[in-house]
Parts: sequence; structure tokens; C-alpha cells
Amino acid sequence: MTGRPTLAVVGATGAVGTVILQILSQHADIWGEIRLIASPRSAGRKLAVRGAEVEVVALGEEAFDGVDIAMFDVPDEVSAHWAPVAAAKGAVVVDNSGAFRMDPDVPLVVPEVNPHAVRNRPRGIIANPNCTTLSMIVAVGALHAEFGLRELVVSSYQAVSGAGRAGVETLRQQIALVAGSELGTSPGDVRRAVGENTGPFPEPVALNVVPWAGSLAADGWSSEEMKVRDESRKILSLPQLPVAVTCVRVPVVTGHSLTLHARFEGEVTVDRAREILATAPGVVLCDDPAAGEFPTPADVVGTDPTWVGRVRRALDDPTALELFVCGDNLRKGAALNTAQIAELVATEFQ
Amino acid sequence: MTGRPTLAVVGATGAVGTVILQILSQHADIWGEIRLIASPRSAGRKLAVRGAEVEVVALGEEAFDGVDIAMFDVPDEVSAHWAPVAAAKGAVVVDNSGAFRMDPDVPLVVPEVNPHAVRNRPRGIIANPNCTTLSMIVAVGALHAEFGLRELVVSSYQAVSGAGRAGVETLRQQIALVAGSELGTSPGDVRRAVGENTGPFPEPVALNVVPWAGSLAADGWSSEEMKVRDESRKILSLPQLPVAVTCVRVPVVTGHSLTLHARFEGEVTVDRAREILATAPGVVLCDDPAAGEFPTPADVVGTDPTWVGRVRRALDDPTALELFVCGDNLRKGAALNTAQIAELVATEFQ
Repeated sequence: MTGRPTLAVVGATGAVGTVILQILSQHADIWGEIRLIASPRSAGRKLAVRGAEVEVVALGEEAFDGVDIAMFDVPDEVSAHWAPVAAAKGAVVVDNSGAFRMDPDVPLVVPEVNPHAVRNRPRGIIANPNCTTLSMIVAVGALHAEFGLRELVVSSYQAVSGAGRAGVETLRQQIALVAGSELGTSPGDVRRAVGENTGPFPEPVALNVVPWAGSLAADGWSSEEMKVRDESRKILSLPQLPVAVTCVRVPVVTGHSLTLHARFEGEVTVDRAREILATAPGVVLCDDPAAGEFPTPADVVGTDPTWVGRVRRALDDPTALELFVCGDNLRKGAALNTAQIAELVATEFQ
Repeated sequence: MTGRPTLAVVGATGAVGTVILQILSQHADIWGEIRLIASPRSAGRKLAVRGAEVEVVALGEEAFDGVDIAMFDVPDEVSAHWAPVAAAKGAVVVDNSGAFRMDPDVPLVVPEVNPHAVRNRPRGIIANPNCTTLSMIVAVGALHAEFGLRELVVSSYQAVSGAGRAGVETLRQQIALVAGSELGTSPGDVRRAVGENTGPFPEPVALNVVPWAGSLAADGWSSEEMKVRDESRKILSLPQLPVAVTCVRVPVVTGHSLTLHARFEGEVTVDRAREILATAPGVVLCDDPAAGEFPTPADVVGTDPTWVGRVRRALDDPTALELFVCGDNLRKGAALNTAQIAELVATEFQ
């Protein structure tokens, strides 16, 4: 295998697909052909990548002819069917759905944390983690490498674009309905204003927070919460790590934030934690509250790194740190990590 | 001391004072005179309470003549000066500022949790907890009474009305600026739209979350975070309780939400936790995710109880529970608890 590999982008017209094309246009161009694949409905559309217009082709077996690496950003059931088809035709699949993440024969890869895992892919499929896991795991991985993680308590502040274009459109419509009003001070008035227009969310999200993301898993947990726990354990190779998670949707367009309470093997210091975070690849330390410096989603949207602030040692436990992390859920949380994995695999073709 | 006590409301024209007057008009009328006190600027205004117009008088020593119980909702420095003046004139002061909460000679009272503490008030002053502490402590106290609390990890989703009328006005102005736009998808665009109009917050709060509330305390902690820890310990009489807190402001008008990871002395069950929460005074259990039921600020605004949902046992620790709690920060979080304390004290006058 030599030369420039052929790349396929499956789901090129979606919210994450759009960001993938931007990233492919910005990163060093290591690719031969870039083929854009989407549902038959979108076939024939032309999208810009690397400064040229490329026509979208319909998803089908022949679409993978000659493809070396295929990025998938499509619903779980579409990946479940088509990723093995692409792999059977010889492509290495990098899949951003939830279909394969916990498959023991599929590595779950974050290039800054476990790049080695990319080589062990018996099914020819590599999974990209969930956007919420990805919004924190680079920072957590850097601290774990030095301090040894023992326990993680996570609360999320998740942007609506995590629910796709429909999530963004729903928030914009709701914001327009409540802007300029006195809504939000009486019980139920936001709900009355919004009506049934809650889009992919179970409750109004404008002027509100909604403690639910995903579908119902066992024992009252949401699927999103289970993903954060199970994926963190797999990526960090800590299958017994206690991880407690509550996922909450907030009225932010793009940018997932999380609070972390992380307990380690022994005593930690804030000074050393800051050094680790300030030098870790893919992490930016933004932590000077006296100067008003901490990350917020409005600042990190559109950027690549995991931003970390509010670094404190727990007042009552010298082995624990408190952190606030922020990342762009469409970039590192989805498209960027997918591209990074594909670029890692592409080095095998040189 | 017999008959109907005379009540003073100091700070009657503020955001919390307004809610206090509503509550006094709704609760059983146990009061003799209700005197409204505010800054000299507001003196002469007439406000409705118990269906009648009452003229506001200026804060001064003589304003406390004949007052039995005085509720204070004014800035810390105003309380620090005037609460002892009112107490010296014989009034029992119920103070909602931060001036006296950690004073060992001032009880910090939540009537559902530690009503007995109200009687031990050597300075004649009783303190009302911070709104964030109050948004969770009734539920936490009920679980502690049965299970024995050992550790608490808290993340907040705090409404802008916790920063007073200026906080609400700032969010409304910012929402108007971003409504109908594509803002929130590019770095810095919300900040550019909002400009310097961040009001009492260090960053734009519309389409954003801001991991900061209060002023800078030691070691990178915010004053709000320290309050939640220190006040929870004092109210629960657990001076050594490990409490880890990260406080985050969200674009919600009224209604503080918190995620809780609570570890107890021994094994807990979700069924028993739900029974406790379903029967605890001042708590409403709203927890059926299969039916889309969990509390959100838009639902709880204007109501009295602490709403609890998302009750789960930690997957990796049978002694810990995960919870999502919601409460009206202006009612139970401020005005209601103040009124409840005053009503407790008033029983001494019967």
C-alpha cells in the first residue's frame, strides 16, 4: 500500500459531515480522491472540499469501489449495515456512530490518548467516541497518565447541535419565541410559548435546562450517560473505573461543557495538574479566574482543543481535582477526531 | 410576648423582597403590622401586601421601633450594619445576606432540616442560606436523615435571577441581540454581538454557560462554591463533610438546578430513596424518565418545593446516589425560606 489513499466521507451532507469537509480543506492534503457519499436523496448535490466542487454519490456497495479509508457519520442503523460492507470491500472504516463503540473487536480511539489501539482492528472498523466523552477525555487522559485515575464524577452542559441540525433549528425557533418577552418567570410560560415545538428534546430548551440526552437505558440511566461511562473506561483501558455521569442539555448552539470531579491514586497538586494540562497535546489551559479567564462554549466554538479551566484541588480530599472543560462537540467531539483517526491510518499507506 | 407580632421587611422593593410580599399575601396571615423598609431612594413608594397598599419607609434606627421580627434582604454590607441595630432594638432578625451565615453565634436554618436551631440565637439574628444551597438542601437533608451522608459532589446550573434584577435584564437584552441570528456557531460571535453588555456576569450568558458565580475565594474557588460547601456542613451539622462544588451560570431566568453525587454510610437502594423523597416535606419527586418526567427550571419556577428527578444508584458504588434537583431560587432559595423561618419564630409570640 503506497501513495495517496482514497478517502470516502459517508454522511457528507450532515451537520458533522459539513465540518469534516471544512477540516479536510484545512488540514495538510494527504488524500488522493475524496469521495462524498450520502443518502440517494442528496446524490447529485455538489459540495466544496479542498477548494473544488465534488458531486455527492448515493450510498451503495459500488460507492466503496477502490476506497482505502471510509469515514462514516450516519445514524447507528445505517453504520451497522454499511460499515461492514465497506470493510468487506477493503476499506478501513472510521465510524462515528454508536453501533460499534463497545464491540470488543473494534478499537475506540482518541489519537492523543490511545493511538496504538488503531492498529488492532480485526473487523476493519475503528470507532470514534461519543461527543460528550470526547469533550473531556483528552484532558482526563493527560491527568490519568501521570496521576492514575481512580474515580470520575461528570456533569454535562451539552449543546443542542449534539442532536444534529434539528436540535439547532429547534433552539433558534424557541429563542425567537421567547425573545423580547417576560417569559421564564412564571411556571409553565416557556412551555406554553414553545408549545409542541420541542424538536428532538423532551422539554423546551430555551430559557431552560433539560436533564436528559439520548434514550432510556436500564435503571433510569440515559444512553448518553452510559456512553460516557463505558467509553471512558474503554479508551483509558480502565474497565473497572467508577464513573458517575448526569447529562443535561443547555441552550447553547455548539460547545459541550463538563464539570469533572476526578480522584487519583495519590495526592495531587494544582500546580502539577496545571503543568500537565498546559503542555498536553490537544489541551489548552485557560484558568485565571482573578483575571476573569475560564473557558465558555461561546469562546471555544470552532476551535480544535479541549479547553480546561477552574482547576482546583478538592478542599476535603488531597487526591481529587475539580475541573471545568469545554470543547467543540462538532469538531473534537466528532469531525476532528474522526479526521485524526483517518490521518493516523493513512500513515500506513505511505 | 403574645398576640400578633409586628413584622418588618427590609429590602422590600428588591427582587427577593417582591417575592416576600407575594408570599406574605398568600400564606396564613399571622402578622400584626407589616412594615416595609427600603433605601431612602425608595421611601414613599406604595407596595401591595395582604391586599392593601403599604407605604415604604426609609431604613433607619427608628424604622425598627416596635418591630418583633425583621426580615432582611439587602446587600451584605447593609445587613452587617443594620441587622445588629434591629436586634439591639429587640427584633429577631432573619437575614438573607451572607454577612452572618458562618457566624458561630448565628444559626443557619432550613425549617425542614434543622428547625430546632432557630431557638439558639445569641445575637438575635438567624441566617437564611444562599439560594444555591437552599435549592438542594431539603432533599439532601431528607436522604441524610435516613442514610447518613458521607460525601457530596455538586454541579450547579444557576439562573440569572440569582444575580438580582440586573442579571435578568442582562439575559433579556442578550437574548434579544442573538434571536433570529445565526450566532453561536462561530468563535466569538456571541461575544461580539453582546459587546460589553455582560451586566453582573464576566462573560455573555445568552447561548452560553459561564463557570463562575460570586467573587474569588482562596485557591481558585468562587465564593458561591465555598458557600455551598460551608453552609451545607453547618445546616446538616456535619462539619467535616467532604463537599466538592462547581458553580455554573446558565441562560435560565429563574430556577436553580443541581446535579448531585451523594455517597452515604452504607448501601442504598433507589426504591427506598424514592420513598424518602416522595414523602419528605418540601420535596416533590418527579422521576419517570420513561414517561419523559424529570424536573426542569421552566416547570418549577414559581413553585415552593425542591423537585427531584433522575434518581439513580451509582453503577459502580452501591453507597452512592445520582440526583438532579430543581428549585425556584427566589422562593425556597430566598423569600420562602426567610418567610418560613419568620413564621417559626412567630410561634414564640403566641
